[in-house]
Amino acid sequence: MVKRYRLGSAGAKEPVKTEAVIADIPESGSGSLFLTQKNGALEYEMPDDMIVYGLGEQTRGINKRGWKYVSNCSDDPNHNEGTQSLYGAHNFLLLSAGDFNVGVFIDTPAKVTFDVGYTRYGLLRITVADAEETAYDLYVMEAESPSETVREFRRIIGRSYIPPRWAFGYGQSRWSYDSAEEVREVVRRHREARLPLDCVYLDIDYMERYKDFTINRETFADFEQLVSDMEKEHIHLAPIIDGGVKVEDGYDVYEEGRANGYFCKDENGGDFIVGVWPGRCCFPDMLDDDARRWFGRKYKILLDKGIEGFWNDMNEPAIFYSEKRLKEVFGEIDAYKGRNLDVDSFFAFKDLVGSISNSEKDYASFYHTYRGKRIRHDKIHNLFGYYMTRSAAEAFEELAPEKRILLFSRASYIGMHRYGGVWQGDNISWWSHLLMNIKMMPSLNMCGFLYTGADLGGFGGDVTEDLLIRWLSFGVFTPLMRNHSARGTRRQEAYCFAGRTELFGGILRLRYRLLPYLYSEYMKAALQDGMMFLPLGFVWPEDEIARRTEDQLLVGESIMVAPVYEQNADGRVVYLPEDMKMLRFCGADIVEEKVYEKGHVYIRMPLGDVCIFLRRNRLLPLADSAEYTEAVDYRRPGIYAYGDAPEPYAYYMDDGRTKEYDCGRHIVYLTADRENA
Amino acid sequence: MVKRYRLGSAGAKEPVKTEAVIADIPESGSGSLFLTQKNGALEYEMPDDMIVYGLGEQTRGINKRGWKYVSNCSDDPNHNEGTQSLYGAHNFLLLSAGDFNVGVFIDTPAKVTFDVGYTRYGLLRITVADAEETAYDLYVMEAESPSETVREFRRIIGRSYIPPRWAFGYGQSRWSYDSAEEVREVVRRHREARLPLDCVYLDIDYMERYKDFTINRETFADFEQLVSDMEKEHIHLAPIIDGGVKVEDGYDVYEEGRANGYFCKDENGGDFIVGVWPGRCCFPDMLDDDARRWFGRKYKILLDKGIEGFWNDMNEPAIFYSEKRLKEVFGEIDAYKGRNLDVDSFFAFKDLVGSISNSEKDYASFYHTYRGKRIRHDKIHNLFGYYMTRSAAEAFEELAPEKRILLFSRASYIGMHRYGGVWQGDNISWWSHLLMNIKMMPSLNMCGFLYTGADLGGFGGDVTEDLLIRWLSFGVFTPLMRNHSARGTRRQEAYCFAGRTELFGGILRLRYRLLPYLYSEYMKAALQDGMMFLPLGFVWPEDEIARRTEDQLLVGESIMVAPVYEQNADGRVVYLPEDMKMLRFCGADIVEEKVYEKGHVYIRMPLGDVCIFLRRNRLLPLADSAEYTEAVDYRRPGIYAYGDAPEPYAYYMDDGRTKEYDCGRHIVYLTADRENA
Repeated sequence: MVKRYRLGSAGAKEPVKTEAVIADIPESGSGSLFLTQKNGALEYEMPDDMIVYGLGEQTRGINKRGWKYVSNCSDDPNHNEGTQSLYGAHNFLLLSAGDFNVGVFIDTPAKVTFDVGYTRYGLLRITVADAEETAYDLYVMEAESPSETVREFRRIIGRSYIPPRWAFGYGQSRWSYDSAEEVREVVRRHREARLPLDCVYLDIDYMERYKDFTINRETFADFEQLVSDMEKEHIHLAPIIDGGVKVEDGYDVYEEGRANGYFCKDENGGDFIVGVWPGRCCFPDMLDDDARRWFGRKYKILLDKGIEGFWNDMNEPAIFYSEKRLKEVFGEIDAYKGRNLDVDSFFAFKDLVGSISNSEKDYASFYHTYRGKRIRHDKIHNLFGYYMTRSAAEAFEELAPEKRILLFSRASYIGMHRYGGVWQGDNISWWSHLLMNIKMMPSLNMCGFLYTGADLGGFGGDVTEDLLIRWLSFGVFTPLMRNHSARGTRRQEAYCFAGRTELFGGILRLRYRLLPYLYSEYMKAALQDGMMFLPLGFVWPEDEIARRTEDQLLVGESIMVAPVYEQNADGRVVYLPEDMKMLRFCGADIVEEKVYEKGHVYIRMPLGDVCIFLRRNRLLPLADSAEYTEAVDYRRPGIYAYGDAPEPYAYYMDDGRTKEYDCGRHIVYLTADRENA
Repeated sequence: MVKRYRLGSAGAKEPVKTEAVIADIPESGSGSLFLTQKNGALEYEMPDDMIVYGLGEQTRGINKRGWKYVSNCSDDPNHNEGTQSLYGAHNFLLLSAGDFNVGVFIDTPAKVTFDVGYTRYGLLRITVADAEETAYDLYVMEAESPSETVREFRRIIGRSYIPPRWAFGYGQSRWSYDSAEEVREVVRRHREARLPLDCVYLDIDYMERYKDFTINRETFADFEQLVSDMEKEHIHLAPIIDGGVKVEDGYDVYEEGRANGYFCKDENGGDFIVGVWPGRCCFPDMLDDDARRWFGRKYKILLDKGIEGFWNDMNEPAIFYSEKRLKEVFGEIDAYKGRNLDVDSFFAFKDLVGSISNSEKDYASFYHTYRGKRIRHDKIHNLFGYYMTRSAAEAFEELAPEKRILLFSRASYIGMHRYGGVWQGDNISWWSHLLMNIKMMPSLNMCGFLYTGADLGGFGGDVTEDLLIRWLSFGVFTPLMRNHSARGTRRQEAYCFAGRTELFGGILRLRYRLLPYLYSEYMKAALQDGMMFLPLGFVWPEDEIARRTEDQLLVGESIMVAPVYEQNADGRVVYLPEDMKMLRFCGADIVEEKVYEKGHVYIRMPLGDVCIFLRRNRLLPLADSAEYTEAVDYRRPGIYAYGDAPEPYAYYMDDGRTKEYDCGRHIVYLTADRENA
């Protein structure tokens, strides 16, 4: 059951319609609200045994207790456990203790603070920044179990985005492959080494001076030929699109946007100028229907060249600097010259420059046109990435209605899950970011984001071969499986580590063996408003150890994973909430099958071994390996089974390209008779 | 057996005498060296099962494999797993696999890079930055076990520093307690709430405008009275001393230093000017015997006021800016004005200001006088903190020869362990920094640093009550047990969390119950060149799981600890390499005793519970609790025992104040007859 409450100060304006929720829920009187309205916040006393799930893309644990989180889409590649805001803003919480399983969704596009026991361990306190001025809708849902509560929520926000099946293949990325030759070389080296690959991502340097919808013809002279040659190699190219449009006379996108008033405005009504990759840029007003439609249709330029996938970046939107603030800073710097700079004045000087990017002040100094009215950016900040991605998705619907196109975004808000996926933002080659990747999967799934994954190996910083091995060993399970790294960091393509290419190839081939299962589980989660990655507590809510386990996950209905995320570990302790059969893969091959009883067990997992735990009376379909997604034989997967009365496996399979998802014949029931173990 | 090799390029100058090693070891021919000299580095192929211990104060694991570390004393409060250099420079490695237990100590005060399988997982590669110009000594020691190899090393570097016993009490610190009144208030609140306390640390604001050896008489008008009042309350005050001396006419320390040429020089022979807390400062030339003696004797100013403990800070030395570089930066900034700043130019601009502190260039632009010769700072960089601390310790030896004085330092090099302890530098209120604290303990112990601990609760960032509880629950075992936090962060004194004061009090009282054991184990480690904190692999080298366990430690000869360092965990899996008896403390009281068999076991550990694992046939002496160290009854501790044939416990106890450490009567043998469990 879902209830909607209209909250905010008396006299507050009507809420901004985020279109996160698509169901029509009548308003309830706030008398029935279980949260207390107090001191301008919503408060709740959490019992000690309560786990607070949710918040999608956020730092820290699956259980969010013990920190203060702020929904405020932020470009923060160096995030850590002190971070309060990441790229996405996902205002869904699930409070779970015993029979009490209540979901809360705060639907407002401005900043929301979730103090989940930070100020006091037992107190939940939610503060909506703009509630004085603008009302907002609060949705509360309750069901018998955590999973069912999530399903209630997901039903009201609509079906999650479904990518083409090739997007479940392995993707290789780099900021940047600087030329068509380099892209060809990357593909060649994968194919030569029998490293499976389906996609190469093009980062900002494929463009001419970072201008959206252009091609750098010096380095990608034969771009169209490249796309077509790659297609023959079963490789898709996925270019990046940025949230800002370069200010440059004669650049058609800029000229059109300016002429038609499609850009965000400064307080005087002029185009608001920010510095991003190319320097001076304007932001298309993604909130404005005309501007959004105009921007979305620009993707056609690339679609027409044969492109079938995109990633939308810098759409928090990230601001290196605003033109205005930059000028002020240069002025303020002068005041520090020639003085004795002590601790206070020196750090004030450093901070003056250090805090120039993504400043609050800048976000409160430009404007959108939303349903005909001017609205200041900070009041709708969390919608920018969502509406940019929506602009593309809506255009695709029009330009290629039959076809699935890969689309994912860095910034997001709930609602965007219908239009595209998210990658987990710029991260670092840290073991702790591998663990964060693991913990973020179920949190994002709850919020509707099913197509997701982290930059495997880490974007910033220098990877080590053991970290890359471990990260890919988890990445074989995530729908988006992309190896991505930043300019200036160590190369981390799977062929870069002497003597390890075969090991990497084994892990990648395992991914392709898992594709029938992963794709099927993904589709069922999307079509049934379910989750593909589940905390153990969702399946065994009465098992206190399972509830507190944060480093193991259910992946779909049949298997549990227990990744290694600690350097130099040769194995790890795994908790089995019930007896399961471990399948040990060395490379793509099963080298050991062993049943473990319920309880804790230490299992050796040397580099290159991937252990999958098959639940009792469940089946795991496994294909033979392949070097690209469409070479996988989806029709006749082998079956691994454990238990003497396995339930038939509801196997979803379609053509992976078109959109007739709901056709009944896409589900067939596989049984253990076909077991080949 | 220890061998010494003289290495470096042909024609390189004589090594700088660091006086890290005090034993006289004859030189061996490099033919017998097990490392290969190759491409200007020392190389070694590590078998897969080799664990590489060591490096003292460094990031990452107890096993250092899989990263590149640089010995280069660095002020980096925001360190993380990508960090390569911390505050200390401890060039000792212990390679351990089966019977092979070989220690390596690279004795050179300039930068050393330890690539422990970063470039290639199996390759150890050590590069000495200055080896072209200056020779260095390499010491290699081998013994039957990891512990014995460490002991061989420790024998040649001399006995570790021994603090007064009161320094094992709980200390409370803050940057800063701003006035005498605030110090009194902090003490009062501890005493009123029965929170044990022995020491309050004074951070930089007790000084007059951050000038070493001055008192801010506006806020600490009655400093001498304060010291004496606190003494009556059994509280010691420990002021901070900084590595830089403020440039200010009329300030006697500065005037004396300038007049006598005691400061480091710039390339033209003038005093080198850097910006630190007070703004413009000079560095006393700690390498110069006269300057060092002069600086050390300044501590007398505070000793004469009744002070008995100090912490030496900013002695990497940290440089906010050099006067010269600051001027250059202001000039260079102008070039960015009025341009279109794109990604390259904008980040160059930000970096110009962002990288102004602790710059390599500055460290290579000033000079010391070392044994009569001018030497550029970067060539002896890692000695500065060591020699600053030595300056104080040598002065204490002269000024108060009978008395132990508390002294610890932020920067260090091996050799300094004879003169003082180290705290683990400025850290953050992160769970990962609690884990780093745990892992750093044995690594520092190997290198001779026994008196150590981290800023409990974290220095920077905002603590949460659960993190502080867990951190103190580990901190009860570390010799230095200090709660310290930075200006602008959440207050974290033990009385700051509503409803938790009693819980914190329980943990602190447990510390005092443990004091007989902790002090005894500390003294034995110091007097016998042993370690107080041991990795499990040191005790069970043939147990592969024990060898890979990085989150449990032996503390002394009788107990193992398994701290909780994950947020929202309600317990953890503990590995028992042999059967042990768990003593569960809730507060200071034992509430459960249970024997566990060898293997993995999940043990519930709610907030406030501290579990100690008593080894079979070992004894644990435990006192009654007390509110300060000297109120503990050290003579008649109670005894907890496990096993039917417990070995007598060699209990070391002395007066805790004077220096007759070696007296035979300080050891008595306690037996299980006195068991009170």
